[in-house]
Amino acid sequence: MKIDILTLFPEMFAPLEHSIVGKAQEKGLIDITYHNFRENAEKARHVDDEPYGGGQGMLLRAQPIFDTMDKIAAKKPRVLLLDPAGRTFDQSYAEELAQEEELIFICGHYEGYDERIKTLVTDEVSLGDFVLTGGELAAMTIVDATVRLIPDVIGKEASHKDDSFSSGLLEYPQYTRPYDYRGMTVPDVLMSGHHENIRKWRLEQSLRKTYLRRPDLLENYTFSEEEKSIFQKILQEQERLEDK
Amino acid sequence: MKIDILTLFPEMFAPLEHSIVGKAQEKGLIDITYHNFRENAEKARHVDDEPYGGGQGMLLRAQPIFDTMDKIAAKKPRVLLLDPAGRTFDQSYAEELAQEEELIFICGHYEGYDERIKTLVTDEVSLGDFVLTGGELAAMTIVDATVRLIPDVIGKEASHKDDSFSSGLLEYPQYTRPYDYRGMTVPDVLMSGHHENIRKWRLEQSLRKTYLRRPDLLENYTFSEEEKSIFQKILQEQERLEDK
Repeated sequence: MKIDILTLFPEMFAPLEHSIVGKAQEKGLIDITYHNFRENAEKARHVDDEPYGGGQGMLLRAQPIFDTMDKIAAKKPRVLLLDPAGRTFDQSYAEELAQEEELIFICGHYEGYDERIKTLVTDEVSLGDFVLTGGELAAMTIVDATVRLIPDVIGKEASHKDDSFSSGLLEYPQYTRPYDYRGMTVPDVLMSGHHENIRKWRLEQSLRKTYLRRPDLLENYTFSEEEKSIFQKILQEQERLEDK
Repeated sequence: MKIDILTLFPEMFAPLEHSIVGKAQEKGLIDITYHNFRENAEKARHVDDEPYGGGQGMLLRAQPIFDTMDKIAAKKPRVLLLDPAGRTFDQSYAEELAQEEELIFICGHYEGYDERIKTLVTDEVSLGDFVLTGGELAAMTIVDATVRLIPDVIGKEASHKDDSFSSGLLEYPQYTRPYDYRGMTVPDVLMSGHHENIRKWRLEQSLRKTYLRRPDLLENYTFSEEEKSIFQKILQEQERLEDK
């Protein structure tokens, strides 16, 4: 996958040199290029200006972004603009982006940008309902969540099969050594070596946690027969707890 | 504000040296300390281990995190653990955190962490419904969104009053020079110099954009009398459009 990032702060992208995204670059699975669009600004590297109609803060000008885009050789890229009003990023969006061959990210900064920049983009994307000082952290986060889904990026394919959201459920609790840490012990079932009981316990934990914390995730969830019966039991337990 | 970050990758936090968070540190408004908990791991810097009960991937062990937390002098910190099953981060959460004097972030990595680590935390927080390779980018994003709300961090107080979400509405379109860029011109009203018309146009644009893209945000929105009447007009226009 080819990734182009338009930003005034290429040095902010150090996190992508580390961890799994860094390894994916070393393996040649992805190729990230940073474009500091200040270098393409006319008039003494002038990237921002005051809003027409008045108001606080400065806006990114259209010209440096347009001229930078003209220089990027891309066939059919998805062009993502980070904007709080965009489509909210989630795991299915990451899976969609992981199929693409070329992604271009335009990172705003300052108070906003000239509306005409939107004519260049295919996707306005929001990381969530909060405001950041710039689009850089949002772009890095989206790259991280997307790149880890590309085949061969994570060593063992299986290791994201059980992720929260990939299965549609939140992840069950996990424990590692020692058995007793500061008086807190590991649930007996996990020490039993009984694989079928462990699988059932984990499924029940996932279902209960999802029901208690994020019932919205269950609205579109397709239950297996086994899950239906476990879920009935959880609902009955909760009713009993509420009656007390 | 004092911020402590527990991470295996302190070098990933370079973005926080830049932009507004970097300036807030220079001004002494915030003080960030990184704790590489690998340095507190017993047994040859051993930070991860296999899950009890089997399964793919490695989990963070409890000991290095507990021992690092013991060394942090904090009175009444909010301790945030980045976890996809946590409370979803949003602007009101950022406003809440911006009131705190001490924040501690625990960044997981690998496939997950020992459940007992949760006994140390006050907040399990999720950046959104997606999976990252580690908690670092999520922690940086939360720090960025929070720190910019601390008084005096952003020069002009007014400049986040109009942010998307702060007002409860998405932001109106903005334009800067030139008036004509590649044949695309600025809406006439913004060139008129008529402040009251500009204010009304912006309010209508905000309301329409929020209605079309994020009607969920309007569910808990308190409309002023003026907004009610503009919103009625928008609804009527939309009905006409749908009838065509």
